[in-house]
Amino acid sequence: MAILFHWRDATPGIWLDAFKTAGCGTDIRTFEMPGNREEIEFAVVWAPPPGQLKTLPGLNYIFSIGAGVTHITLDPEWPTDVPIVRLQDRLLVLDMSCHVIHWVLHFHRHYDRYACQQAERRWLRHRYPENADRRVSVLGLGQTGQDACRRLRDLGFAVTGWARSQKSINDVRCLAGEAAFDTVVHDADILVNLLPLTDATTNILDAAVFDRMPRGSFVINCGRGSSLCDADLLSALECGNIEGAALDVFREEPLPESSPYWDHPRVYVTPHSAAPTNERSAAEFVAAQIRMAMDGGQPAPVVDMSRGY
Amino acid sequence: MAILFHWRDATPGIWLDAFKTAGCGTDIRTFEMPGNREEIEFAVVWAPPPGQLKTLPGLNYIFSIGAGVTHITLDPEWPTDVPIVRLQDRLLVLDMSCHVIHWVLHFHRHYDRYACQQAERRWLRHRYPENADRRVSVLGLGQTGQDACRRLRDLGFAVTGWARSQKSINDVRCLAGEAAFDTVVHDADILVNLLPLTDATTNILDAAVFDRMPRGSFVINCGRGSSLCDADLLSALECGNIEGAALDVFREEPLPESSPYWDHPRVYVTPHSAAPTNERSAAEFVAAQIRMAMDGGQPAPVVDMSRGY
Repeated sequence: MAILFHWRDATPGIWLDAFKTAGCGTDIRTFEMPGNREEIEFAVVWAPPPGQLKTLPGLNYIFSIGAGVTHITLDPEWPTDVPIVRLQDRLLVLDMSCHVIHWVLHFHRHYDRYACQQAERRWLRHRYPENADRRVSVLGLGQTGQDACRRLRDLGFAVTGWARSQKSINDVRCLAGEAAFDTVVHDADILVNLLPLTDATTNILDAAVFDRMPRGSFVINCGRGSSLCDADLLSALECGNIEGAALDVFREEPLPESSPYWDHPRVYVTPHSAAPTNERSAAEFVAAQIRMAMDGGQPAPVVDMSRGY
Repeated sequence: MAILFHWRDATPGIWLDAFKTAGCGTDIRTFEMPGNREEIEFAVVWAPPPGQLKTLPGLNYIFSIGAGVTHITLDPEWPTDVPIVRLQDRLLVLDMSCHVIHWVLHFHRHYDRYACQQAERRWLRHRYPENADRRVSVLGLGQTGQDACRRLRDLGFAVTGWARSQKSINDVRCLAGEAAFDTVVHDADILVNLLPLTDATTNILDAAVFDRMPRGSFVINCGRGSSLCDADLLSALECGNIEGAALDVFREEPLPESSPYWDHPRVYVTPHSAAPTNERSAAEFVAAQIRMAMDGGQPAPVVDMSRGY
C-alpha cells in the first residue's frame, strides 16, 4: 500500500508526520516519482496535473486538500469511478464564519463609510438598523453555511439560509429549492454566497438576482468565483442597487491585474483567504480517513457527483 | 411629580411615549422651561449645562442617557448627594460587542493589509495564527466587557479579561487588580479597552503599556478617549511595537481636524459610533426605572461614586 501526495505548496514534514502518527505507513509517492503505480491506493491531492490520476490503476480513494473538488474534476480524464473525499475541517469552518461575520459587520455598521470619511477628516455618525432588522441571507447550507448561519443568528441578525435540499437550524429561516430562491434573494439586505460550484450554481448570482435584492444591499462572495457574473455585479454597483461587495473568490485567480475590481471604491478584494487550508489539521483529518479505509471503514464525506459536491 | 429631560439630539416623541406607557405621567420639563423646580423629582440627561442640576431641590434620581456618567460629573457643581443611574441596555451591549468583534477580526485576519494591497493590485495571502493562539485581552468587565469576552471566546480566541475586582466567566481567564495588570498587557496580541473613565483609568494606556505588549500587537479603544495617551500610542506605532489601532473615542470629540490620527495609515478612526444609544430601548429602560422609583423601589444600576462607575 502506498499514498500518492500532490500539493505544490505543502510542508511535507507535516503530512509525513500525520500519516505516520495515524498508522498509514511511510510509503509516500509523488507523480514525479510514482514507483510501482499499482501499489498506490490513496491519492491526496490539490490540483493534480490533468491525466495523471487515471494512471493509477489501484486507486481506492482520492482525497481533496480543500472543501471544493473542481480542482480535481476539471481534469476531463479524472477516474470517475473512484470516490472523492472532501476536506472537512473544523478550523476551516470557523475561519469561514469569521470571514463572513467580519464583512457582515463591516457593511452593517458602516465601517466602509467611516474609512472614506477618515480620508476627508470627517466626523459623522451613520444610523443602522438593529441587528434583528438586518436581513442576512446565506446561500449554501453545508457545514460552513450552517455554522455561519448559527453564528450570525447568535449576533442577533435576521438570518435566512438557502440550500438545494431542506435543512433545519434553530431560529434560522431555512428555505430550499429553486422555487424559494427568489424569496431568499428578495429578502437579502446582505447576501452571502457559500455555494459549491456545480452546473446549477455557475453564474447563479446574475443581474436578475441583483435587481431583486433591496436597493442599497451588499454581496459577500466566498463560495466560488464562477458563481458570480462580474459584469452584472459591476452594473448593479454602478446603478446603486448593490451598495458594496466583499469578494474573496474569482473566476481567474490570482485576480488579473486588469480586473476592474481592484480599484473599485465599493468592492473589497481579498486573495481567496477566507478559509485557507490549515495544513496541520487537514493532514490529521486526511490521515485519519485513510487509516479508516485501511481498516475497512468508509471515509467521509464522499462527494456525490450527481450533485457535484 | 415632574421629570426634567435634557438631551439636545433626542426625538421627544419617543421619550414622551415611553414615559406615558410606563405610567410616569406626562409632566416633562426642560431647563429652559422648568416650571416649579421643587416638583422635579427625576432628571433624565445627557451633558446637562453646568450648574443646572443643583437648581433642582427635590431631585431623587439623575438618569444618565449613556453608560458613562462623566458628562454629568464634569459639572463641578453637580449635586453629589443625588444618586445617578446609568443606562443599561442590551442593544448597547450587543452593539459594543459587534464593534469589538469586527476590529479583532479585522486585525487578526489582516483585512487592513488586504485593503492596502488592493490599492497596489497585489494578490498575496498572509498567514495568521489559529484563533486559539491569538490572545485578546479585554480591559473592563462590566456588562459590555463580559459580553465581549464571551463572544470572543465563542469565536475560539484565547481571551483574558481584567477588572478592578475579580470576575468569573466560563473559559475566560479573569484577572483582577493592579498587580495583574502587567500580565494582561504582556499577553495581549490585541488589547481592547472598555474601562470606564475614573482617576485610576485616566491615561492608563501609556508608553509603559505599549512597551510591554508583544511586538506587532493591536489596540482597540472603545472605552474613553482620556484613558489613552495619544502621543505614546503614536510613538509605539512609529517604532512598530503597535501594528495598528482602532479608535472610537477621543479626548476631544469630534476629533479635531488637526489630529494626526486622521491620516495615520495604521489608525482607524470611527466617530464614537461603537455603541450609540438606541433611543427607543433607552427610553423604555429609563421609564421603567422611574416607574420603579415612583413605586418605592430602587432603580439600578446606581453609580458608586467612590469607584466612579
